[in-house]
Amino acid sequence: MKAFSVRPAQHTYAVMELPDPGLPGPTQVRFRVLEVGICGTDREICGFHYGFPPEGAEELVIGHECLGQVDAVGEQVEHLNPGDLVVPVVRLPCSDAGCLPCVEEEQDFCNTGNFLERGIKGAHGFMTEYFIDEASRLHPVPPHLRKVAVLTEPLSIAEKALLQIQEVQERLPWPPPKELNAVVLGAGPIGLLGCMAFQLRGYQTTVYSLEPEDHPKAELVRDLGATYVCARNHDLEALDRMVQPMDVVYEAAGAPRLAFQLLKYLDHNGVFVFTGVPGEKPASELDMAHIMRNMVLKNQVVLGTVNAGRKAYANALEDLERIEERWPGILDRLFTAHIPLSEAEHYLVGESRGIKNVVDFTQVLS
Amino acid sequence: MKAFSVRPAQHTYAVMELPDPGLPGPTQVRFRVLEVGICGTDREICGFHYGFPPEGAEELVIGHECLGQVDAVGEQVEHLNPGDLVVPVVRLPCSDAGCLPCVEEEQDFCNTGNFLERGIKGAHGFMTEYFIDEASRLHPVPPHLRKVAVLTEPLSIAEKALLQIQEVQERLPWPPPKELNAVVLGAGPIGLLGCMAFQLRGYQTTVYSLEPEDHPKAELVRDLGATYVCARNHDLEALDRMVQPMDVVYEAAGAPRLAFQLLKYLDHNGVFVFTGVPGEKPASELDMAHIMRNMVLKNQVVLGTVNAGRKAYANALEDLERIEERWPGILDRLFTAHIPLSEAEHYLVGESRGIKNVVDFTQVLS
Repeated sequence: MKAFSVRPAQHTYAVMELPDPGLPGPTQVRFRVLEVGICGTDREICGFHYGFPPEGAEELVIGHECLGQVDAVGEQVEHLNPGDLVVPVVRLPCSDAGCLPCVEEEQDFCNTGNFLERGIKGAHGFMTEYFIDEASRLHPVPPHLRKVAVLTEPLSIAEKALLQIQEVQERLPWPPPKELNAVVLGAGPIGLLGCMAFQLRGYQTTVYSLEPEDHPKAELVRDLGATYVCARNHDLEALDRMVQPMDVVYEAAGAPRLAFQLLKYLDHNGVFVFTGVPGEKPASELDMAHIMRNMVLKNQVVLGTVNAGRKAYANALEDLERIEERWPGILDRLFTAHIPLSEAEHYLVGESRGIKNVVDFTQVLS
Repeated sequence: MKAFSVRPAQHTYAVMELPDPGLPGPTQVRFRVLEVGICGTDREICGFHYGFPPEGAEELVIGHECLGQVDAVGEQVEHLNPGDLVVPVVRLPCSDAGCLPCVEEEQDFCNTGNFLERGIKGAHGFMTEYFIDEASRLHPVPPHLRKVAVLTEPLSIAEKALLQIQEVQERLPWPPPKELNAVVLGAGPIGLLGCMAFQLRGYQTTVYSLEPEDHPKAELVRDLGATYVCARNHDLEALDRMVQPMDVVYEAAGAPRLAFQLLKYLDHNGVFVFTGVPGEKPASELDMAHIMRNMVLKNQVVLGTVNAGRKAYANALEDLERIEERWPGILDRLFTAHIPLSEAEHYLVGESRGIKNVVDFTQVLS
């Protein structure tokens, strides 16, 4: 079967031939891969800036945003059947028996840093025709979400952030008896899906990004009932005047200078969530004293959040359904292209195109 | 009666004469002030960098670290009697009926910023002979803590931080099944009391500060079973090698450059607590990308915390007792001088002296 793999040491990538996966073990499920979304991490791996093959291997099969269809199940698997749609999780626990989060299958909070990530770090990903995984690591997907469920994994980033916000804010009287304001930095898929998740929960959301006001992304934001502010026309002071008070900031741009500058506008008891991973950049000047004073005097929290746990995936699937109901068709507008595996390379390297591109394995296999 | 007050607009301060406070109302208590600790905030106010008199007044009576002895109680007061020792709280709620934290008397999380702080912001402080306060805002103090209870308020800063750490960490499997490491930045009273609180809870604590290794503060740290590292001899990389992994950092130095530099050494699932309020300082260079990447990939939290709530005061009083039991006499070593009100000025302006100086009103009045 075919798979898209990267050889980091050789600085090469290719569609390669892999042996068929065989039969699933007793607790396992074999699924046919239907769709794999392409994200910035995949593009970084294909640029050889990141990505680690499994131990002993030279190549890494990429792909971590996956929708599959069950094809065969092990004898002990009870809740999945051939034909079922599934979304697999990305992160696998580390093998350290002393790592409490991993022992409890909460590997998104791995303490050791030795977790694996399918398609990214030490484990093959899903950009291949068939995959065998533990049944416990597959989230069942209702059939009517077939067209959009490939967005589960990117949406799960926002879901984890929202869960974390809720949990850290429980340390104080929360929520305040008023509408909360959220600022989303960046209008990529993580930012736009984040905007949807915040809007669903009743936040008044403002997306701040570089695209002009008449860009389709800006229109999409407005169609969600949210506000779009173009960063080329309005500086952070202007943004602060527009969003009063700034209760939550959700950073999905990976822009450290912007993020740390915006930190000083965060309101009392505010939360600033980092989800974007910035590349290496030179040091910049910053009024750290101002930020720190605000954080103390206003009881603020800055929170980093990576990947997603079981609950975040489950919430993502529920929210895809709620988004479809509330804004019919809006999720479709996130998709720029559905392409066969043979064309994946053009979307994995070179200039970034559109919002979300998806490798559609049914185009290869039908 | 005498009081130490500051007139910010005139840039003057003086021991002034105030009218006697009269009798307490039905829900109130009048107490004689026994001791008032002097802290950096008092010194800032006496330097006219901060401090706001009550509405309509020109002067602000300073002092917020107070131990008093009940002198008269209102008719509805049940749990306090003349002769009882009390510690009053600093922060008062704002008057906004929509501010949920203040409505619930959790004014340390005031949403509006319009809270008052006795001796600091919009309300007179305790550096005076007698004071009338609501009984509900007084914490009773066991008689055997008479000598050390003036440390309740500064210790309550660490107690609030520990409560907040516990609450934000409950979002993940916590604590991990191992000894936790804490780094305390700064060896002032907040840092040293913080070190005691962390040691009490079983953290392996390291205090990082400018004083040389043979300084009495460094000896005090070692006598607590903690480690002292002199910042003049060891840079942050060296500190990182000594404290592996860095689970919690407690910033009590108000040093933003140092704090943000140290942020990048924080471990997986780590918490960095800001309690120190820095003065205005010029912008500095910083590897924000590195910090942000770490925060995301390691699920870290940076938390600002100010003042203390009811529970933090109660914990502070309990911990003073536990500290006395475990390290008899060590709290006494925090006191540099007990001085009469007439000498307070020398400790409120000019060069900072020692660790904790206390205005002892029994010296004036006896």
